[in-house]
Amino acid sequence: MIHHCSLQVRSYEVDGYNHVNNAVYLNYLEYARMEFLKAIGFDYRLMRERGYSLLVARVYIEYKHPAEPDDYLTIITTPIKKQKTSGVFKQTIWKGEKMICSAEVTWVCVDSHGRPVRIPHELDSPELNPKKEDIDGSIH
Amino acid sequence: MIHHCSLQVRSYEVDGYNHVNNAVYLNYLEYARMEFLKAIGFDYRLMRERGYSLLVARVYIEYKHPAEPDDYLTIITTPIKKQKTSGVFKQTIWKGEKMICSAEVTWVCVDSHGRPVRIPHELDSPELNPKKEDIDGSIH
Amino acid sequence: MIHHCSLQVRSYEVDGYNHVNNAVYLNYLEYARMEFLKAIGFDYRLMRERGYSLLVARVYIEYKHPAEPDDYLTIITTPIKKQKTSGVFKQTIWKGEKMICSAEVTWVCVDSHGRPVRIPHELDSPELNPKKEDIDGSIH
Amino acid sequence: MIHHCSLQVRSYEVDGYNHVNNAVYLNYLEYARMEFLKAIGFDYRLMRERGYSLLVARVYIEYKHPAEPDDYLTIITTPIKKQKTSGVFKQTIWKGEKMICSAEVTWVCVDSHGRPVRIPHELDSPELNPKKEDIDGSIH
Repeated sequence: MIHHCSLQVRSYEVDGYNHVNNAVYLNYLEYARMEFLKAIGFDYRLMRERGYSLLVARVYIEYKHPAEPDDYLTIITTPIKKQKTSGVFKQTIWKGEKMICSAEVTWVCVDSHGRPVRIPHELDSPELNPKKEDIDGSIH
Repeated sequence: MIHHCSLQVRSYEVDGYNHVNNAVYLNYLEYARMEFLKAIGFDYRLMRERGYSLLVARVYIEYKHPAEPDDYLTIITTPIKKQKTSGVFKQTIWKGEKMICSAEVTWVCVDSHGRPVRIPHELDSPELNPKKEDIDGSIH
Repeated sequence: MIHHCSLQVRSYEVDGYNHVNNAVYLNYLEYARMEFLKAIGFDYRLMRERGYSLLVARVYIEYKHPAEPDDYLTIITTPIKKQKTSGVFKQTIWKGEKMICSAEVTWVCVDSHGRPVRIPHELDSPELNPKKEDIDGSIH
Repeated sequence: MIHHCSLQVRSYEVDGYNHVNNAVYLNYLEYARMEFLKAIGFDYRLMRERGYSLLVARVYIEYKHPAEPDDYLTIITTPIKKQKTSGVFKQTIWKGEKMICSAEVTWVCVDSHGRPVRIPHELDSPELNPKKEDIDGSIH
């Protein structure tokens, strides 16, 4: 599963350089992961109702080129690792052929006490597993 | 009760003009209202736990002068109206002697179904009432 | 000219109530105004390059109903007043038939010294003028 | 140079979990780096005026524990690497004795064309160099 979604930079997302602010990219990546979950039919709302959450445990992000208001950006999201209670997405943001940034985001499933647990079987999705060719795509 | 609090503009709060973004002032005003509530001993956390909320129903805001990174700002918060289920704060933001913006914010107390209700008696505070001299301070 | 645009609420735009944060609506409105300007062919970038800006001078906003993550929202933008150096947009945000909020936003054209000036003739657009039937649509 | 600064979590900085949103920590870290620069007398404004910028090239961040509204947080910033055109800060955020998150932020100095260059000699500061004991403090 390689998931694409896109968005256009909004005027209020830029900083004093007229560039998308560094922190805003983390919002974009979150948006793309939520779209990924919807695309694979993962019922995140139900998961929350049952007291489970997918939390972000680690982010590694490299900023390559700035983006500006009105730029159309594409975000590509791919699972590259899945372990018992956690997993890793590789996410890249593109403006046409130019890579704007590249990130790896580690998530962990926690119960209502914040303890790492397996994703409950009936909620889990095979699409959270990386395909063979996507394993080891790590950037660091 | 006229309440003062202050903050310093942070680099990530400005837009492409290097001015504090319009929407950010609403965050500053929210911050100042929460500080006001703490200052008068209003137990907002307890109120939430009992299923009540103070929601913002209306904001009127006039932007007078821009603010920039590192500017020290003072926010003055004063109740100017109190009715059965709602009330109005006048809030002004200052950079030294210069007024940056001026606002009126109408809040309403709602129960867990979103219905306007009186603030429960044991949670209410006389300090939410305007003093005589602060009534009619309305800017529009 | 009545302009429609739409967006979907993103997960990171909500507050501790799981509702779109009050200040975020001002961002949505800014987004819609920028889309309006594009739709009427107003060259905002050129205007900035020449040292002019359209600043927000006043916002009056009424919050009617909360919006939540994934809600599809439509924003309607209509000029309701135009004066020498300023003008007013009425903007409403809808979730289907339900009005989420209603706002009036006053803009002013300023030169590079921040002084109110007419929009330079070659940049101005008749579409910034209200149509007869949209005048007096004021909500306060 | 080990620099401490502190802030209190504001109500509008939390997400639907009532936890500080992941992206907001990047804002906190930016705030702390700007405070670090002020503390060592680095004239960032002058640097910008001369056409140079310090850009963030990479961030690695681990989220350890959530923070909530009103939490007092301390941010510790330490240079752990300095190279010709770039450097690395280690930054940790604490709530009392509890580490909320830990990050490494790589900056690069660029000229007005976005090309990596040395920090101009008269603007550079020895305090951007790590002390011996702070080298190799890397978390990944």
